[in-house]
Amino acid sequence: MTDHVVVRTRRGPSGKVVTALAKSGVATSHEAHGRRGLLGPELRPIYPGARIAGRAVTVLSHPGDNLMIHASIEQCREGDILVVATTSRSTDGMFGDLFATQLLHRGVRGLVTDAGVRDIADLQAMGFPVWSRAVHAQGTAKAVAGSVNVPIVVAGQLVNPGDIIVADDDGVLCVPLTEGEAVVEAAAKREAGEEAKRLRFREGELGLDLYDMRPQLERLGVRYVDADEPEETR
Amino acid sequence: MTDHVVVRTRRGPSGKVVTALAKSGVATSHEAHGRRGLLGPELRPIYPGARIAGRAVTVLSHPGDNLMIHASIEQCREGDILVVATTSRSTDGMFGDLFATQLLHRGVRGLVTDAGVRDIADLQAMGFPVWSRAVHAQGTAKAVAGSVNVPIVVAGQLVNPGDIIVADDDGVLCVPLTEGEAVVEAAAKREAGEEAKRLRFREGELGLDLYDMRPQLERLGVRYVDADEPEETR
Amino acid sequence: MTDHVVVRTRRGPSGKVVTALAKSGVATSHEAHGRRGLLGPELRPIYPGARIAGRAVTVLSHPGDNLMIHASIEQCREGDILVVATTSRSTDGMFGDLFATQLLHRGVRGLVTDAGVRDIADLQAMGFPVWSRAVHAQGTAKAVAGSVNVPIVVAGQLVNPGDIIVADDDGVLCVPLTEGEAVVEAAAKREAGEEAKRLRFREGELGLDLYDMRPQLERLGVRYVDADEPEETR
Amino acid sequence: MTDHVVVRTRRGPSGKVVTALAKSGVATSHEAHGRRGLLGPELRPIYPGARIAGRAVTVLSHPGDNLMIHASIEQCREGDILVVATTSRSTDGMFGDLFATQLLHRGVRGLVTDAGVRDIADLQAMGFPVWSRAVHAQGTAKAVAGSVNVPIVVAGQLVNPGDIIVADDDGVLCVPLTEGEAVVEAAAKREAGEEAKRLRFREGELGLDLYDMRPQLERLGVRYVDADEPEETR
Amino acid sequence: MTDHVVVRTRRGPSGKVVTALAKSGVATSHEAHGRRGLLGPELRPIYPGARIAGRAVTVLSHPGDNLMIHASIEQCREGDILVVATTSRSTDGMFGDLFATQLLHRGVRGLVTDAGVRDIADLQAMGFPVWSRAVHAQGTAKAVAGSVNVPIVVAGQLVNPGDIIVADDDGVLCVPLTEGEAVVEAAAKREAGEEAKRLRFREGELGLDLYDMRPQLERLGVRYVDADEPEETR
Amino acid sequence: MTDHVVVRTRRGPSGKVVTALAKSGVATSHEAHGRRGLLGPELRPIYPGARIAGRAVTVLSHPGDNLMIHASIEQCREGDILVVATTSRSTDGMFGDLFATQLLHRGVRGLVTDAGVRDIADLQAMGFPVWSRAVHAQGTAKAVAGSVNVPIVVAGQLVNPGDIIVADDDGVLCVPLTEGEAVVEAAAKREAGEEAKRLRFREGELGLDLYDMRPQLERLGVRYVDADEPEETR
Repeated sequence: MTDHVVVRTRRGPSGKVVTALAKSGVATSHEAHGRRGLLGPELRPIYPGARIAGRAVTVLSHPGDNLMIHASIEQCREGDILVVATTSRSTDGMFGDLFATQLLHRGVRGLVTDAGVRDIADLQAMGFPVWSRAVHAQGTAKAVAGSVNVPIVVAGQLVNPGDIIVADDDGVLCVPLTEGEAVVEAAAKREAGEEAKRLRFREGELGLDLYDMRPQLERLGVRYVDADEPEETR
Repeated sequence: MTDHVVVRTRRGPSGKVVTALAKSGVATSHEAHGRRGLLGPELRPIYPGARIAGRAVTVLSHPGDNLMIHASIEQCREGDILVVATTSRSTDGMFGDLFATQLLHRGVRGLVTDAGVRDIADLQAMGFPVWSRAVHAQGTAKAVAGSVNVPIVVAGQLVNPGDIIVADDDGVLCVPLTEGEAVVEAAAKREAGEEAKRLRFREGELGLDLYDMRPQLERLGVRYVDADEPEETR
Repeated sequence: MTDHVVVRTRRGPSGKVVTALAKSGVATSHEAHGRRGLLGPELRPIYPGARIAGRAVTVLSHPGDNLMIHASIEQCREGDILVVATTSRSTDGMFGDLFATQLLHRGVRGLVTDAGVRDIADLQAMGFPVWSRAVHAQGTAKAVAGSVNVPIVVAGQLVNPGDIIVADDDGVLCVPLTEGEAVVEAAAKREAGEEAKRLRFREGELGLDLYDMRPQLERLGVRYVDADEPEETR
Repeated sequence: MTDHVVVRTRRGPSGKVVTALAKSGVATSHEAHGRRGLLGPELRPIYPGARIAGRAVTVLSHPGDNLMIHASIEQCREGDILVVATTSRSTDGMFGDLFATQLLHRGVRGLVTDAGVRDIADLQAMGFPVWSRAVHAQGTAKAVAGSVNVPIVVAGQLVNPGDIIVADDDGVLCVPLTEGEAVVEAAAKREAGEEAKRLRFREGELGLDLYDMRPQLERLGVRYVDADEPEETR
Repeated sequence: MTDHVVVRTRRGPSGKVVTALAKSGVATSHEAHGRRGLLGPELRPIYPGARIAGRAVTVLSHPGDNLMIHASIEQCREGDILVVATTSRSTDGMFGDLFATQLLHRGVRGLVTDAGVRDIADLQAMGFPVWSRAVHAQGTAKAVAGSVNVPIVVAGQLVNPGDIIVADDDGVLCVPLTEGEAVVEAAAKREAGEEAKRLRFREGELGLDLYDMRPQLERLGVRYVDADEPEETR
Repeated sequence: MTDHVVVRTRRGPSGKVVTALAKSGVATSHEAHGRRGLLGPELRPIYPGARIAGRAVTVLSHPGDNLMIHASIEQCREGDILVVATTSRSTDGMFGDLFATQLLHRGVRGLVTDAGVRDIADLQAMGFPVWSRAVHAQGTAKAVAGSVNVPIVVAGQLVNPGDIIVADDDGVLCVPLTEGEAVVEAAAKREAGEEAKRLRFREGELGLDLYDMRPQLERLGVRYVDADEPEETR
């Protein structure tokens, strides 16, 4: 009954947009994108320190089955990030070093998966970063159909093929293709503003004053109380 | 209806107590404190190797709102540890590098939070340790009132402002201000005892003998059975 | 009513089998073992990079009580791995550096526990690897009986005393004693096959072709669709 | 930076489609929809026995804030189902009997929420069914903006405004508006087929034979083994 | 090292306060108490429909050990509610029908426990309501000391002996003894206000108007958009 | 590589043992069995009030695949309970009313599954009880091999084919076939003892006295403290 497809598409962001977002990182790009598009905190990197951005090639797999990851590799090109969801929750180790070898050959930058991953020592040695829900050696079948390059939901976030993925130690962000340039622009402004604030904070200024929050606290009825004086005057 | 307050207080431990507890670490101090005061294992450090102790400045925030963290910074001084709870469970990234910049300027030693944190690569580079429930880039609002320096519950543990926080790779401990010196004393005794045991264990003595547990096992009805002999004599 | 026993047994794998499985690691050995025997992904190493194999000495403890770990140490010998389960779920830190000191003296290679562990900075410094459900400093009692070297279930997997444990960054595997040699043999074949595939993948061949999966995709009704052409010809 | 909107729309399914899907229920409609569109099992009904279908009116709220639920009610009409997501995970009781009173007046059939609900005894007495992630009395603020009738993700599933929601004791299903009639048709066929099978199963026929699975088991290498005879002949 | 005590105390609320709060229920009392004091949503009633309030008698037990529940019963009197925490997380069935028999004899109204409960069919038949983290038949030891009537944390909430517990289908609330009368008063006002609103909502008025939220939405930048007209005019 | 088998076996308990254990229920049988054999609290009944016991027919399935449940039905006979595990964690609705129809025809008493179930309103109407990890309508494939009547682990507990399953509102217990009669005997004794205690508890006797625990509390150093007098004498 289900319609299983492998969609061939060149749709994707420019290299300039991707480079800029990789530099901004997840937290800044997320703010610049109006606090939308973040994948849930259950996805964690298998090793610290990676920061990448790229075009999403999406895979929808049956749980415990990596047939469609095999089918997806041919659809990947230089600068892509493979993004894998399963039709129901699974932590099986659907992905390991043999897949990474194929993907590195094609210039793919990393994997984001709502399921599990294995061979993580090898993946770190190869420099192939992965953000996953679990590390699990559990092997999978190659028996059930699924789709490549269809819209999927990963860790609570909709990802369309061709969308821009940004991933670093803070997690994973998805920016719709059409909004990439606006996010780059907003991120640049934000970074400039943050740097100015950072300098003032380093000199001891408080956010309370810099953002002029004292009137807001008063309006919300927050009272200041001195706890120590009564004791001291006794 | 709720009473929102920012409590100003100088209440806190002496530097001597804090230095001693940081040296003892969480596991030993927890034992020395009668196995009380430990925060739950859901709090984890964002990077390994930090070990700190300090005075708790507490924050009670609405979920998804960091207004009161802004209000709390002014209440922090050299040697403090900021401890943040939310009125209901949240993993939003309420805290990042701009807050850490302000806190480092004031000599604050780290953050313990029942919610999420972001900018973790920057925080590690700055040497600002955090123990949190989650890493999540999710941004927050600054719209709802809360309190500073009121009693809060973090990861199942009551923390009063001015209490002593100890945190390392094993987790986070809270020691009430009035019990700090007793814990330091008990920890010192315990460390001496442990060192003596460690030497005997290194030479091959068993805890079973050192703690004289064999009679207890017998009293509890634990039987010793040889599994291999019947097979071998067959 | 319960029968509490400490079983003395020399049953265990040969050094040759253990050495071979440690070299193969968890993911490969798990595949070579017919994808059976894997412990659940909730067990994680306390530090990255360890890879061990050895004979299982099993402990069944009351939650929050490490009396039987004390009793188990005497039953351990060179090359063993201690494997601890509790009769109901617990994350208490039942194990720390004093236990590790005793076990290192006897040549024990590591700990696998369905509960918690503490002193993890010390354990890493000592080079004693642990795979656990949690890191928690919570101390335990020594008051309730249990058993040593009886069958236990750890993270959803049955472990018999004398079974072979393999553990690395990908998790923990249990291979029944009688199947160790067959797994070693199958792992060797698998590694040879994987190396051949790895070379072909490095040169750009796809798993889709190497495993001849295109006919399977067609049989399952997976259709290939071109997304970009209609838009471009418009 | 974020764009907050309340979208007014009459887009929605026909009463005929909705009535048919409510009759088929979640499990059958999900199968008829190619096993797509199901919300995760973390959503549970607050009381057993309800079975509804209707047009989705969607709400995207800040966690711990129900301002946008207030804004959404005006957008609801007879036969709708309110569907609420939060921008990050929350179990706060965002919804209670005063909201249900307003919605019942407008003919709304129920609530599906990725967060919490309260007043559940009253809601059951009023006959207003709710599927939620949690029951929690925790009150919320009305301070932060969000959106109404924008695409949201609830329990891992994309829901667009105007989509068809089906909900019963088995959970919650979302069918895209354009696919409603096809699902109704496929469900009717499926039900006829199931009824025929049910009759044969009642008379003792096995699915193994009815679906002709024996050859498949053989092809997959499943062997039949008699466990009792060897023991008995000994 | 730990100090284990059984505290005898008559401290507790008046019958009038308790009766009023049981009538108001958890959600209303929680609002009347400034949205403080709620236990987490992980505690659920073992059967629907109970609504009680009473004085908290608190128990702090070792996980997997119900010795201190035995010790607590003598400290209970007519109108009390037993509240049990463990020093670390446990779901063991620490409580069953034999305990309930003893407590019913003394007029105790129910149990709130951060751990597990068993014999739930019997407890329902006896009319003894329980709010617990789990239902589990797992038996416990009676070997390790703990305390009765000391401050405890249950499902993230501090409970002091003598505090007022309110529990119903929405969960469990703790009100400090000294604040009981203020909460009763605030709840009465709130109920009057809610009844007035309920009548207006029944006649079709919207919260949006009744609470005058339209200006707030505008101030927050929420825009109203018509989705259907552009399509229809095309 | 894996060996997939369907084992035919008549091994199982006598009707007398099964009837007795169903009458005793889970909590009592678990105690009578030395507090062993309990499945974890994550398994819950889909409706309250069922209490069954029977012979375990076991199924080991690939996650998201119910082929082997089809294969298992032929191996079931009057008085059996089907027990299903998956090779890795899954909540898919592997079982529904069409399976139950086949099983009821054969006199099977219920289902225990480590995965999900659907059609729960129908199953309750049919009187076919299920204990499961989840309710989820998610459909499954019938593509991957597994085994019937092999040892499996369900919710942390080893279940062998032919073992005795007891299930009620308190959860699920597994008693090894060879221990059934001993458990029946011990349960009968326990019930007699409990009834005697129940009578004494109803008259107001305390467990503290009946079990003579006061000396134990004293030995463990539990002190009795009067909290109210100092305040009152002031």
